[in-house]
Amino acid sequence: MTQNPLKSWADAAPTLIAVAAGRQPADMVIRGGTWVNVHTREILPGHDIAIAEGRIAYVGEDASHCTGEGTEVIEANGRYMIPGLCDAHMHVESGMLTPAEFAAAVIPHGTTSMFHDPHEIANVLGLEGVRLMHDESLLQPVNMFTQMPSCAPSAPGLETTGHEIGPEDVAEAMTWPGIVGLGEMMNFPGVSNADPKMLAEIAATQASGKTVGGHYAAPALGPAFHAYVAGGPADDHEGTRKEDAIMRARQGMRAMLRLGSAWYDVKAQITAITEDGLDPRGFILCTDDCHSGTLVNDGHMNRVVRHAIACSCDPVVALQMATLNTACHFGLEREIGSIAPGRRADVILTSDLETLPIETVIARGRVVAEDGAILCECPHLDWPDHSRSTVRLARGLTADDFRLPAPAGANRVRANVIGVVENQAPTRALTADLPVRDGAVEAEGDVCHIALVERHKATGDVSNAFVSGFGYTGSIALASTVAHDSHHMIVVGTDRAEMARAANRLGEVGGGVTLWQDGEEKALVELPVAGLMSDSPAIDVAAKAHRLGQAMEAAGCTLNNAFMQHSLLALVVIPELRISDKGLIDVRSFERIDVLTGETS
Amino acid sequence: MTQNPLKSWADAAPTLIAVAAGRQPADMVIRGGTWVNVHTREILPGHDIAIAEGRIAYVGEDASHCTGEGTEVIEANGRYMIPGLCDAHMHVESGMLTPAEFAAAVIPHGTTSMFHDPHEIANVLGLEGVRLMHDESLLQPVNMFTQMPSCAPSAPGLETTGHEIGPEDVAEAMTWPGIVGLGEMMNFPGVSNADPKMLAEIAATQASGKTVGGHYAAPALGPAFHAYVAGGPADDHEGTRKEDAIMRARQGMRAMLRLGSAWYDVKAQITAITEDGLDPRGFILCTDDCHSGTLVNDGHMNRVVRHAIACSCDPVVALQMATLNTACHFGLEREIGSIAPGRRADVILTSDLETLPIETVIARGRVVAEDGAILCECPHLDWPDHSRSTVRLARGLTADDFRLPAPAGANRVRANVIGVVENQAPTRALTADLPVRDGAVEAEGDVCHIALVERHKATGDVSNAFVSGFGYTGSIALASTVAHDSHHMIVVGTDRAEMARAANRLGEVGGGVTLWQDGEEKALVELPVAGLMSDSPAIDVAAKAHRLGQAMEAAGCTLNNAFMQHSLLALVVIPELRISDKGLIDVRSFERIDVLTGETS
Repeated sequence: MTQNPLKSWADAAPTLIAVAAGRQPADMVIRGGTWVNVHTREILPGHDIAIAEGRIAYVGEDASHCTGEGTEVIEANGRYMIPGLCDAHMHVESGMLTPAEFAAAVIPHGTTSMFHDPHEIANVLGLEGVRLMHDESLLQPVNMFTQMPSCAPSAPGLETTGHEIGPEDVAEAMTWPGIVGLGEMMNFPGVSNADPKMLAEIAATQASGKTVGGHYAAPALGPAFHAYVAGGPADDHEGTRKEDAIMRARQGMRAMLRLGSAWYDVKAQITAITEDGLDPRGFILCTDDCHSGTLVNDGHMNRVVRHAIACSCDPVVALQMATLNTACHFGLEREIGSIAPGRRADVILTSDLETLPIETVIARGRVVAEDGAILCECPHLDWPDHSRSTVRLARGLTADDFRLPAPAGANRVRANVIGVVENQAPTRALTADLPVRDGAVEAEGDVCHIALVERHKATGDVSNAFVSGFGYTGSIALASTVAHDSHHMIVVGTDRAEMARAANRLGEVGGGVTLWQDGEEKALVELPVAGLMSDSPAIDVAAKAHRLGQAMEAAGCTLNNAFMQHSLLALVVIPELRISDKGLIDVRSFERIDVLTGETS
Repeated sequence: MTQNPLKSWADAAPTLIAVAAGRQPADMVIRGGTWVNVHTREILPGHDIAIAEGRIAYVGEDASHCTGEGTEVIEANGRYMIPGLCDAHMHVESGMLTPAEFAAAVIPHGTTSMFHDPHEIANVLGLEGVRLMHDESLLQPVNMFTQMPSCAPSAPGLETTGHEIGPEDVAEAMTWPGIVGLGEMMNFPGVSNADPKMLAEIAATQASGKTVGGHYAAPALGPAFHAYVAGGPADDHEGTRKEDAIMRARQGMRAMLRLGSAWYDVKAQITAITEDGLDPRGFILCTDDCHSGTLVNDGHMNRVVRHAIACSCDPVVALQMATLNTACHFGLEREIGSIAPGRRADVILTSDLETLPIETVIARGRVVAEDGAILCECPHLDWPDHSRSTVRLARGLTADDFRLPAPAGANRVRANVIGVVENQAPTRALTADLPVRDGAVEAEGDVCHIALVERHKATGDVSNAFVSGFGYTGSIALASTVAHDSHHMIVVGTDRAEMARAANRLGEVGGGVTLWQDGEEKALVELPVAGLMSDSPAIDVAAKAHRLGQAMEAAGCTLNNAFMQHSLLALVVIPELRISDKGLIDVRSFERIDVLTGETS
């Protein structure tokens, strides 16, 4: 594993000085642009940029003294020169892409720096998985910084993950070159209650001088919130209301405003700046989760900045929130986030500051994309075999594995049912009266079978329960190894034989998502790396995901973000009911409950 | 040497969390104040602060849940609660005080954080001197961070210092707990020319993740300036004009605006914010050099903030420039610079945001000053004997040591004369025709003798030359071991016997400043520590310095900052003429020149 060979500022300094002084020609000069200065919040026409060793050597009104025979000259023709965009918090796995393919997807959108928390793979492959993501990240032509996952499992005691992360892992990861801090500290009740393990992870991060990511997902801003802040997390992207953003910024946290594929948290919160006039330096834009379809069709951080501007934010302020503010937050202000001497030469040329067309993308002094087309390689890591064979089933599954036995002699029983709610992450705790056939409880109407199939250690365990809200009709099953956060396998179906076929299919292809109907596979997204990611290009993954969505719709499911709803059904930190390898979990009381509550006839 | 025992945030976290959650009472609660929030730039009435372990546990509208039996409650009665003030760049030695006495002088003015560069002592005692300053700094009840001096000697080849500083020293110092970065890189031509030694010092600092201080003292902002920026300095306090401040901020440096005892660089530069509307985050206030008299009579950073406000700066912006901006610049945003959870509890209570009366000063959770009176100890280091006996003369000096022989047979000779200019640091290169008596050139009229007496290694060397502009009359001599930057001894006099008396007197008391007239000592400021500092209280040192000024005036000298002019005469980096142990130096050409240019009769 070799890092992308970018010299440090110190190592590049003799060259940068010589270029700035006019004693040596630059590698590249961008001529005649309009410098968007995120330090001073100014728009300055008539500026040149000289680049050498992948870094900026000079920004001023005339770089002709830095221009020699070998200098590549790019004519800006008055266009805006803005810093490469930074995504302050995100999960690569959400794109179902490896870091290399994620980078390839977002570079044409002008993203040149990412701060990504690979907590999905941490649940599957532990510290080694994080290291693999980190290593592939360092191969990329853009800056992919890794946040060390803090919470695997996310709900200790309520689920069994493939691997766990502890304070020693955090301390070790802090010594790796690409680790920029601790990933979102999701166990906010743990911090507010001074859980020693959580505090030890925070302490290891602070001791290394790095940034502790936050995640306070409750609406209450009373003592529990204040206790969380006192524990050390330095940012939070879980706010949704203006008061959330203001409270975080006042308390000296960075308020990260999120626009993901399914998160729309910028519009309400940015009014803290646009209406209340708060100093914007404490606010940062991020995506958190982007699906491959969003990356292919809509954009990445450019989409977020455009949206902020559409929400009446001054364009240069919006750019500060996606460049300099982010860099400062992670202590990288002298590496990235602005067009200034010494910084990595990450520059976008655009002819309009509102619609923000990403015309030319320069990363580390090389043109990496032009008019939406990528012009550089994004190298793949040689992923080890065991990272591609993480779906470990004890045996071929049969319909009987998904059979939930009824009490002897019962004809109908009452069952607890996970109720999916349109456009919301929380589920509702419902009950339903279900028929019994051949001693087993049957799905009926909108109530489907749901199963959590253990897939990390081949224990053969299958937890069975019921879910409603998908609207499936006919004989179908959908299975997925994307199953936040422990990433076992979630199978939802109207028919147990279809469920067995879908589950076995994922065992065969090494993970992904598959939809079966009437004995046939209708859609498949292969995710061979850890059962979470594909190393195919985003456009291919997005196409397969699109077909999956169409197949779900054809099977009767009309939910928005239907697959996301499916994949979150094991997320045992969000109320009200979820399923885990330990059974049906009531996330209001944080305890396992029985699926069946009694006979109704 | 033990550090002031403040727990890290991580070590304090369990307590801070418990207090914020209301499970444990705070050590101190400040009740009912107006929170000046430098993160959001808001003024928020009706807030409480809870403090524990010397850090802030909670800031909110009601800390009654944090208040218990043992809690000390301070009633703010609506007063403003502002963060303790930070001086972003300064030299303790300029106050002629040790760090402890400097701290004691500025704490009642609300300064709770200092970033000081002990480059004076570095010239006298080398790395050990820096370590002693660093160690005494860490004993203080406020935050005194040390910047490792970068340039001793400041003019290699043109002077001989007591000790030198090199890249290995810098690398070693970066491992000390109180070192926050590299002190001002004054050798700006060296950086612009990629001098390997200067770049190695910068590289060692960058490798440790610390901040490189800058000092670009030329008015030209062309390629040499750009080359300096490309070399890595992260700030600069040498700007004097609005364009200086703007240029530095645009280039991603912090523009430090300076108001010292004799520096008035805020008024012109702050218009970049007040008139041009630049984002103020890149601007910082500092003092650079404060005399003890200023500290006793006028204030410290409170004086600078008041001045900025008087220059039409918004008070909260002015406070940001003396708190959060400074903290961010040094990567200490989560330690100091704002009133927010986890930060050191450094808080000032004031009833007016424009006149800024410093009513109560709290540092690390203790009341350290009230209405101008200090209420805490500022512990002295046990300075080793050799640090108090740095004035090493080879012998008792006599009038003959200050004799400059004329060419045989000459009656009058033409001499190069250092011309002191009122209110300016640069001198002028003058010439004068001087009489010869008994084979020696005599002072005449406003031209005095000046001598540089070697005092570090007892070589016995005395360089003699002439100076004009002080206005001395009668038989007088002024000697000082404060003699920037090499800090030998500068003696100026109208009479060689008086000069010998003055010089010997400083040998006797171990350094300082003394004025002799008609065979009697008229004033003495003893500076026994390195010949630069006193460990007496500022009020005593200021009184002695005041008497010195009066004695200089009585001897005919009416210059402003007359002693400063005297002490800068060996500063061989500022044009035009200076004196060093190597002789008379022309700082325009950076070479030694002869004192006498020829006979005139």
